Amino acid sequence: MNYQALLDEITSEVLALPVRGDVARYIPELAHVRPDQFGIALRRQDGTTFGAGDWEVRFSIQSIAKVLLLSLACSLDNDLVWSRVGVEPSGDPFNSLVQLEFEEGMPRNPLINAGALVVCDILLQLLPDPKTELLSFVRALAGDKSIDFDRAVAMSELQSGSRNRALSHFMKSFGNIEHSVDEVLDFYVHACSLAMSCNHVVQAFSFMAEHGLNMPSEVRVLSVSQVRRLNAVMLTCGFYDESGDFAFHVGLPGKSGVGGGIVAVCPGRFTAAAWSPRLGTKGNSILATEALRRLAQRSNASVF
Amino acid sequence: MNYQALLDEITSEVLALPVRGDVARYIPELAHVRPDQFGIALRRQDGTTFGAGDWEVRFSIQSIAKVLLLSLACSLDNDLVWSRVGVEPSGDPFNSLVQLEFEEGMPRNPLINAGALVVCDILLQLLPDPKTELLSFVRALAGDKSIDFDRAVAMSELQSGSRNRALSHFMKSFGNIEHSVDEVLDFYVHACSLAMSCNHVVQAFSFMAEHGLNMPSEVRVLSVSQVRRLNAVMLTCGFYDESGDFAFHVGLPGKSGVGGGIVAVCPGRFTAAAWSPRLGTKGNSILATEALRRLAQRSNASVF
Amino acid sequence: MNYQALLDEITSEVLALPVRGDVARYIPELAHVRPDQFGIALRRQDGTTFGAGDWEVRFSIQSIAKVLLLSLACSLDNDLVWSRVGVEPSGDPFNSLVQLEFEEGMPRNPLINAGALVVCDILLQLLPDPKTELLSFVRALAGDKSIDFDRAVAMSELQSGSRNRALSHFMKSFGNIEHSVDEVLDFYVHACSLAMSCNHVVQAFSFMAEHGLNMPSEVRVLSVSQVRRLNAVMLTCGFYDESGDFAFHVGLPGKSGVGGGIVAVCPGRFTAAAWSPRLGTKGNSILATEALRRLAQRSNASVF
Amino acid sequence: MNYQALLDEITSEVLALPVRGDVARYIPELAHVRPDQFGIALRRQDGTTFGAGDWEVRFSIQSIAKVLLLSLACSLDNDLVWSRVGVEPSGDPFNSLVQLEFEEGMPRNPLINAGALVVCDILLQLLPDPKTELLSFVRALAGDKSIDFDRAVAMSELQSGSRNRALSHFMKSFGNIEHSVDEVLDFYVHACSLAMSCNHVVQAFSFMAEHGLNMPSEVRVLSVSQVRRLNAVMLTCGFYDESGDFAFHVGLPGKSGVGGGIVAVCPGRFTAAAWSPRLGTKGNSILATEALRRLAQRSNASVF
Repeated sequence: MNYQALLDEITSEVLALPVRGDVARYIPELAHVRPDQFGIALRRQDGTTFGAGDWEVRFSIQSIAKVLLLSLACSLDNDLVWSRVGVEPSGDPFNSLVQLEFEEGMPRNPLINAGALVVCDILLQLLPDPKTELLSFVRALAGDKSIDFDRAVAMSELQSGSRNRALSHFMKSFGNIEHSVDEVLDFYVHACSLAMSCNHVVQAFSFMAEHGLNMPSEVRVLSVSQVRRLNAVMLTCGFYDESGDFAFHVGLPGKSGVGGGIVAVCPGRFTAAAWSPRLGTKGNSILATEALRRLAQRSNASVF
Repeated sequence: MNYQALLDEITSEVLALPVRGDVARYIPELAHVRPDQFGIALRRQDGTTFGAGDWEVRFSIQSIAKVLLLSLACSLDNDLVWSRVGVEPSGDPFNSLVQLEFEEGMPRNPLINAGALVVCDILLQLLPDPKTELLSFVRALAGDKSIDFDRAVAMSELQSGSRNRALSHFMKSFGNIEHSVDEVLDFYVHACSLAMSCNHVVQAFSFMAEHGLNMPSEVRVLSVSQVRRLNAVMLTCGFYDESGDFAFHVGLPGKSGVGGGIVAVCPGRFTAAAWSPRLGTKGNSILATEALRRLAQRSNASVF
Repeated sequence: MNYQALLDEITSEVLALPVRGDVARYIPELAHVRPDQFGIALRRQDGTTFGAGDWEVRFSIQSIAKVLLLSLACSLDNDLVWSRVGVEPSGDPFNSLVQLEFEEGMPRNPLINAGALVVCDILLQLLPDPKTELLSFVRALAGDKSIDFDRAVAMSELQSGSRNRALSHFMKSFGNIEHSVDEVLDFYVHACSLAMSCNHVVQAFSFMAEHGLNMPSEVRVLSVSQVRRLNAVMLTCGFYDESGDFAFHVGLPGKSGVGGGIVAVCPGRFTAAAWSPRLGTKGNSILATEALRRLAQRSNASVF
Repeated sequence: MNYQALLDEITSEVLALPVRGDVARYIPELAHVRPDQFGIALRRQDGTTFGAGDWEVRFSIQSIAKVLLLSLACSLDNDLVWSRVGVEPSGDPFNSLVQLEFEEGMPRNPLINAGALVVCDILLQLLPDPKTELLSFVRALAGDKSIDFDRAVAMSELQSGSRNRALSHFMKSFGNIEHSVDEVLDFYVHACSLAMSCNHVVQAFSFMAEHGLNMPSEVRVLSVSQVRRLNAVMLTCGFYDESGDFAFHVGLPGKSGVGGGIVAVCPGRFTAAAWSPRLGTKGNSILATEALRRLAQRSNASVF
């Protein structure tokens, strides 16, 4: 399979599609991004990495960080994590309080906002300096020490994030947030603000395709069984209320972020990432979704 | 891999577990089944089939039939099917009207009751004699002409099924059921009443593991792409409100029925089925789930 | 108070308002009504009746019949009624299944569709020939033997009423409907099809303003306490999801119907009815609401 | 009517009832109250006041304060209030976020927590020193300058009130809270902490029975029309998810608080208040409800 030619071809195609959607505006700082960028990268099992378009441009990974937070937490105390968040798809928009109320403060899964906030609360408990340690973790995974938070984005989200604040207080009222809401949110918005390129993302997520082994560093991140479970959670819950749609049309575990990035994992074969800022009505990048769909189809990649 | 030894071992183990759960009682005729039966079967890619326990005993496949109905409908008019049902997990109990109301009569997916009723309505439109043709379809898939409806179970469900009647009228009020509710329900309860053994089930579902090719008959049932999509829908939606849990712990596409049966598909490798009538609180067989979890783990079978 | 002058004045005023809203179309037969009719009537405690506009024209009383059904049922077996329906406002659109699901088949109150269907089921149990007896009851209350069902409207609603059919089957699945759904719906749509004028309505409802005594016939319909409770239910639940709004702006117990009629009760003083077919977004007549608001304000009529 | 004998009789009766329910415990400071106290007071139109039991003992009025906040806000800017809160009953538990989400941050009515928080936000905008001015307002209404906040209760609620904090941030995310959540909550918990006796409450609420005129001070608080509307809102929304029940069984506008107090208004005739700390499952005082039911029945007081 000539992956480079495939990525080039897909890049030409999606850039020729009619322009649709808009960048996320609820975080003011994100609204400044140039909307028509597009990049795609793929890291094959042997370590060879391919890229096209703006694949070296850093973007705000936003909710993609939820998988990194979850991986770090599971590597530290797997049982604690799964005692405080569920593994069921939510069937509701990503910031819904409704389901949380029915389930008495236990988030349906760790990839919706409520679940990621609980994971942050867990990391605050397990680590003395979670922001620094998250950064070390991600830099090691991606093999690039220059990866950093975008503090302007973090502050922008902190000031505009009344919904996440409400979620946190709500879970606190059920006893499922232990630290102060300010601490939890501060850590959460920093994690979401991580600025990474498609290239970074495919390196950092390579352990998800390699049964738990981070390839750049050859360090075990998670056990085989843990990685399978994270892939399962990504497949059933990774795209908010379009998770079934991504599983149906792409057939790979993945995770999207409102910054316009999407990571997809083909276990035993490759990790791919695409990025383009314009989002569809359910908060997922239109061009990145379309590019990954074509990539999966033409490379015959599907877990099914 | 010595599958026979593995199935024997798992059968011994699960039969030694403490007895929990109860048989489904809302269909009176199903309440008569002996609760402590257990069977398991596995059909390998080469056609060799293994079995243990009550793997030749016929049981009421109930909701497992939804996948057969869906496969038949997709083979006839794929686009029509996906224009009238969605592909998202429901995040609600299997007979919920709530979500249906929010989505104005469009069922979230074809594996909840509402969705399967729409699929029945579609088959009523596409086939002159859908009951007979479903029977032929299933008999050919399983390679056994003695497979039949259990009319006592069908009649029992018809008389007790006010909830499905409500669902149908509700969707009809939104225009998403075209035939009379009586016709739709009659077809639906007959499909659910299909009496099949674990052995039958692994033969009938072999096309799901074989990229669309039914192995007993060497007939193409669905395209590669269609089968992948059905597997995706099973993985995200096959176990009501425990779909995420099955994906997380077992890692294979599958479908359960309140008769106590579960089918699981390991694409390219095998089809497995387990059956035991006692159900957990969310309507899935306790022993069948546990047996398939052990099977997947010890045979290192997972799509992730 | 010169009620005749007041009704004339209000009639002129509301007929001069800009035309808004539309007639109910979900019952095909109702869609044929001339939309710009308006009538208003008031029956004072002493029996004198005033009217203006189309106050003698018969219209389909639709949901106003729910109060008549409820009154008849309470007069026969008050305890039975309140053991099977609640008295709380629903906070949801009038035909919602959501709340019914949360409350396991017990309708929130007798003035939403679900509740009225349960009341019909109760009357089927208590009366040998409920349609005939309802007709006698209403004719006696209004003092006019020519009052009748409009069978074309009843049949039209029966054929289009999938939502009510769904509601009935749904409650039957919880055991709160005892008769066949066909019988319950047949009775319900006949009751809703009653054709009465504003004049008829104010006579028929006079017992609600007269502490339970029907004035035309001087027959006791309900006890003082029963009538107070029905007025309470009308005030809190009589206008679907605009009940609070009517209480707030008009301040009188009342009940609306999608035929465009509204009855309002000023206990100890008068009964009023207004009718105009164009409905607002929540299913209540725009002009009838506005006319009754002006009537209450200028006659200083309010229970508060 | 010998009101004193009636209050004495009712007091004896309810104190002889079997002990049921428990005091509110979610505000730690409230849990210290002696549970078996009971008091009742009634202020007749002519100013004569009657009382029995612990009618002079001060208790935490809690949600009864919502009516005082609302009255103060309506007296200052009636239109502003009704542009930011609705007037419909909520049909959900008192602290539900669900409905708020469906209605995009607009509380259903001013007597649920969300609505009262918006009213507090409005008062923060309209008044330079709202705590002091609320205190002056209530002292003048009740004619007793010793009425004060119970700061220990206020602080206790502030520390335990994650749910109200969540509600506030949630509404802020929709733009319906303008001030900082800390300011809004501080004002809200102080208002709820007002310590008043049944005697104080019947004096303070006399304007609700007297068409807007505060009787102790002969000062107009609200217009006739405004008071009618507040009474309407109390009748439809004053008792959380038991509002219909209170209207049905008591037939008077009223408002309860989790401190165990209830105020009831019989327009043109009297104001009554009862207090007893043990609450039923829906958060309303069991004995106070029962006492007011008997009072209304035996004094033939009902708005219907």
